[in-house]
Amino acid sequence: MELSEIYAPVKEDLLKIEERLKAASSAVTHPHLAELIEYSLRNNGKMLRPILTLLSGKFYNYDTDYLLPMGTAVEIMHTATLVHDDAIDSSLVRRGKPTVNKIWGEEQAVLLGDYLFAEAGALTASTGNLRVIKLFAETLKTISSGEISQAFYAFKLEQGRQQYFERVTKKTAALFAMATESGAVLSQAPEESIQVLIEYGYNLGIAFQIVDDILDFIGTEKELGKPTGSDLAQGTLTLPSILILENYPEDNPVKRLFQDRDRQNEIGLAIDMVRNSTIIQECYRVASDYCERARKDLKLLPDNVCRQSLIDLTEFITLRKK
Amino acid sequence: MELSEIYAPVKEDLLKIEERLKAASSAVTHPHLAELIEYSLRNNGKMLRPILTLLSGKFYNYDTDYLLPMGTAVEIMHTATLVHDDAIDSSLVRRGKPTVNKIWGEEQAVLLGDYLFAEAGALTASTGNLRVIKLFAETLKTISSGEISQAFYAFKLEQGRQQYFERVTKKTAALFAMATESGAVLSQAPEESIQVLIEYGYNLGIAFQIVDDILDFIGTEKELGKPTGSDLAQGTLTLPSILILENYPEDNPVKRLFQDRDRQNEIGLAIDMVRNSTIIQECYRVASDYCERARKDLKLLPDNVCRQSLIDLTEFITLRKK
Repeated sequence: MELSEIYAPVKEDLLKIEERLKAASSAVTHPHLAELIEYSLRNNGKMLRPILTLLSGKFYNYDTDYLLPMGTAVEIMHTATLVHDDAIDSSLVRRGKPTVNKIWGEEQAVLLGDYLFAEAGALTASTGNLRVIKLFAETLKTISSGEISQAFYAFKLEQGRQQYFERVTKKTAALFAMATESGAVLSQAPEESIQVLIEYGYNLGIAFQIVDDILDFIGTEKELGKPTGSDLAQGTLTLPSILILENYPEDNPVKRLFQDRDRQNEIGLAIDMVRNSTIIQECYRVASDYCERARKDLKLLPDNVCRQSLIDLTEFITLRKK
Repeated sequence: MELSEIYAPVKEDLLKIEERLKAASSAVTHPHLAELIEYSLRNNGKMLRPILTLLSGKFYNYDTDYLLPMGTAVEIMHTATLVHDDAIDSSLVRRGKPTVNKIWGEEQAVLLGDYLFAEAGALTASTGNLRVIKLFAETLKTISSGEISQAFYAFKLEQGRQQYFERVTKKTAALFAMATESGAVLSQAPEESIQVLIEYGYNLGIAFQIVDDILDFIGTEKELGKPTGSDLAQGTLTLPSILILENYPEDNPVKRLFQDRDRQNEIGLAIDMVRNSTIIQECYRVASDYCERARKDLKLLPDNVCRQSLIDLTEFITLRKK
């Protein structure tokens, strides 16, 4: 199923959010800053997070006065985290085009990320809703602490599934859950429905990240828009590499790479090992479990076309190739 | 006059803010993140910004339920900007101790700064006051755009006083003005008094930065807690170096350094030139003008001991040696 079919019920408003992203630089007087903002917010990826905000807002009082700035805010916040990630990882390519740090340097990328966080915060504040404002600040704390943890554990072998799921919950799922919770809160959903959508967001986010981590092993550079094996190159253990460590505890390419990071050829060996084993199926099975959990309580929401979209999204994120 | 005499009317609450800064890491479960937070918020400098928030809150309904989290927020926000500044400048020493990036690397420093911005945002949100929440987000946008502009103009000679004052207003004075405005707003000051305190904050902030920029030429490394001449080393034109360019347009050490940044010895020559000319007096005169502007409308505020503290602060920031 195509993503565009899934977001059809909110398509018109998603286009408005895309317009707002394109226009975000128009109020900025400094031409260099305007160029940075425009570049980073152009060619935005799948827009999954604003789609989640809009769909989650469709069950009760759908009000674009709140949902459009909020949907814009979640996408800008996501972009800010990517800009900082790329700067600290010295990544050169993202979504098939040069990163901000590649073109303008790490210094500018760090400061642009700060600006984008603030812009996302300002948009969130413009809703006037204290609950989503507090949620925004807490989510940024959570994401940063997840990223700090990931950087701290780089090239360390003493991590298992538990650390992985904790980290993924913080660095990815928290923003998915913010996207769904803010949509629910801003449409005045009853607390029970808000909780259903928060749970959905967390579980979908974890499944999404697992698939992302699988694709880093089995995707092509063209599909991914960045080199295959990036996670191992950064020293980040993800579910596929944790399964290598579990399945071949004595000796394996991940262990050898982490013990001597000059052995870059181990990355290719690890990729081959993952591709030629049952590890991929096992990872997909775990992702599917989280999708199942995401869907489980959706029946408690009003039965409308957006509920089906949320269900379809769980399938889409599992089957996606990029 | 000692700073401690100036903040005497709010001393007790300033100590409470220091306690909150020390305790900011206590709720964090990840020991590494807790260590980073604790390190960055310990040994905090002069605490000028929370002093401004508390003093500005003393003219009407002084309420520590709002002013303590807000004062803590402005100091944490200030710290976050320093952590990012040091990371992107690769600075090794700040306030006489190793920077976060020196100890834990730039990656961790960028992520810690993000976390601290979010923590400051969460504290601001905890006041429940939408005006100060929006002010917080707008101020972070302003500061980041000032920093981006500074980085963009690094080692470029085509900048004069106007660009300098614009940049200083954004990167320094905006946070001073946020400190005073938030104190005024959270104590339910009438709009006229809020505007007086905003103007005070901006003018004091500009004067403060001018003095900072003077000290970068005439201070010792021991007084400054960082090497003398740091601004020129980063390629940042400040008022003293702009006056060198104005007074000796044909040939001067700043011009030579900016045309060939390998000529590091020009920094020492520029420092000598500033010290052995009237440039310092001229810069102090400009700073004094801004202090005068800061004091001008304070008479419109209720006459109390904090009004005198605000006046004394203008003198303190001019006479300080670090």
